[in-house]
Amino acid sequence: MADSQLIKPYKKDATYSYTLGAFPTYELIKTRPHIVNKVIMSKTYTDQDNLVKLCRANGIPTEINDKLLNRISNKDNCYVAGVFEKYIDILDKDKAHIVLVNPSNMGNLGTILRTAAGFGIYNIAIILPGADIFNPKTVRASMGAIFRVNHHLYSSFEEYAKEYDNHEFFTFMLNGEKPLTIKDVPKPKLYSLIFGNEATGLDDSYLHVGTSIIIPQTPEVDSLNLTIAVGIGAYVFTNQ
Amino acid sequence: MADSQLIKPYKKDATYSYTLGAFPTYELIKTRPHIVNKVIMSKTYTDQDNLVKLCRANGIPTEINDKLLNRISNKDNCYVAGVFEKYIDILDKDKAHIVLVNPSNMGNLGTILRTAAGFGIYNIAIILPGADIFNPKTVRASMGAIFRVNHHLYSSFEEYAKEYDNHEFFTFMLNGEKPLTIKDVPKPKLYSLIFGNEATGLDDSYLHVGTSIIIPQTPEVDSLNLTIAVGIGAYVFTNQ
Repeated sequence: MADSQLIKPYKKDATYSYTLGAFPTYELIKTRPHIVNKVIMSKTYTDQDNLVKLCRANGIPTEINDKLLNRISNKDNCYVAGVFEKYIDILDKDKAHIVLVNPSNMGNLGTILRTAAGFGIYNIAIILPGADIFNPKTVRASMGAIFRVNHHLYSSFEEYAKEYDNHEFFTFMLNGEKPLTIKDVPKPKLYSLIFGNEATGLDDSYLHVGTSIIIPQTPEVDSLNLTIAVGIGAYVFTNQ
Repeated sequence: MADSQLIKPYKKDATYSYTLGAFPTYELIKTRPHIVNKVIMSKTYTDQDNLVKLCRANGIPTEINDKLLNRISNKDNCYVAGVFEKYIDILDKDKAHIVLVNPSNMGNLGTILRTAAGFGIYNIAIILPGADIFNPKTVRASMGAIFRVNHHLYSSFEEYAKEYDNHEFFTFMLNGEKPLTIKDVPKPKLYSLIFGNEATGLDDSYLHVGTSIIIPQTPEVDSLNLTIAVGIGAYVFTNQ
């Protein structure tokens, strides 16, 4: 992998992926230096010295290679990229979780990772099938927050639920039973906030998985955007 | 404008724009039938009968024209489009407002319009320069909610503030003074929720425009996504 000849545009089944852009690359190096294989810079990147210094301090090789940058980013205006090994996290048993059931959009998934970190929820479960969390688009949408949270992939909700049976489950559904009002917020000690797919939400089987929650909204829109629903859920449950 | 020869790909300075897709086109017809010039369908659109019936009931001409659809949508998979005249709304003086100062992203702007309608805030002020609210991308991101809210463009915040001096102003800022906690939510009768640009937020001059608000968040992320900040603000202020 240190050999640039072998670095190819991202593929889902590859063992490595990329941070595209300086900000997420810095986040990567600061939070998970041990998984970074290499940092690639453009010869026109203006802050080379600082980045090289940080990489050296962490034993990370650097390389100036505009051709490679263009190849992996598919863009002309990407000045920095990090190559990192994919990894597997384990979720904290005693911390709050966000559970995403079949999230389909990489931009949304990245935004949710960033929002979760913003509200101090550092454990994210993803029920497959779902958007590729290591795709550079997800990583970029997260602004590197992906590296600050633990995530774990599950092949079914049941698999997740069995492992974390001490968590109180809250399912966010358009036909949820309990309206989420700020006057009467649930105050669980340990909880999982569970959200469905962008297009379909959670199916009715989730009505009985725990407490089903609806975020009150007018009938004038179809539903809230998934990222906004997660943002409001995370805000309300952590803001106590 | 009834002449299809004259319908061109969208331009910002045109007097008309488009809804691309069936859902926003239905929203357009249901909420503002008087501004619709024409509805264009693909010959492969499967629900022609219902749409033609609705258009007839509203005196709207329809046309089957795949070439025109491809030209204005720049896509192969757009089956319906509405052509509508741009319009100017006046904001309600006695209703809550959302004020967006220099919003730069059309997708975000559309999502915010949809979210605002979802929480029952039907008046949106935009301080220019800002993303083009009538661009088909904005319209589409709003899922047609743009037609359910009033919006008005202002050349400066001062211009807006002078017109609505009975509104209590709340500016959302990373260095805001008042943390937005659910235990201590402001309960103004008439209010404006004011948000800055995606990249820069509101500058410090907005600290003294009213009550400056910060949504509590960890130092681990740069800031919340604009659409999520608006979603949380709108949720909290309307959920009382």
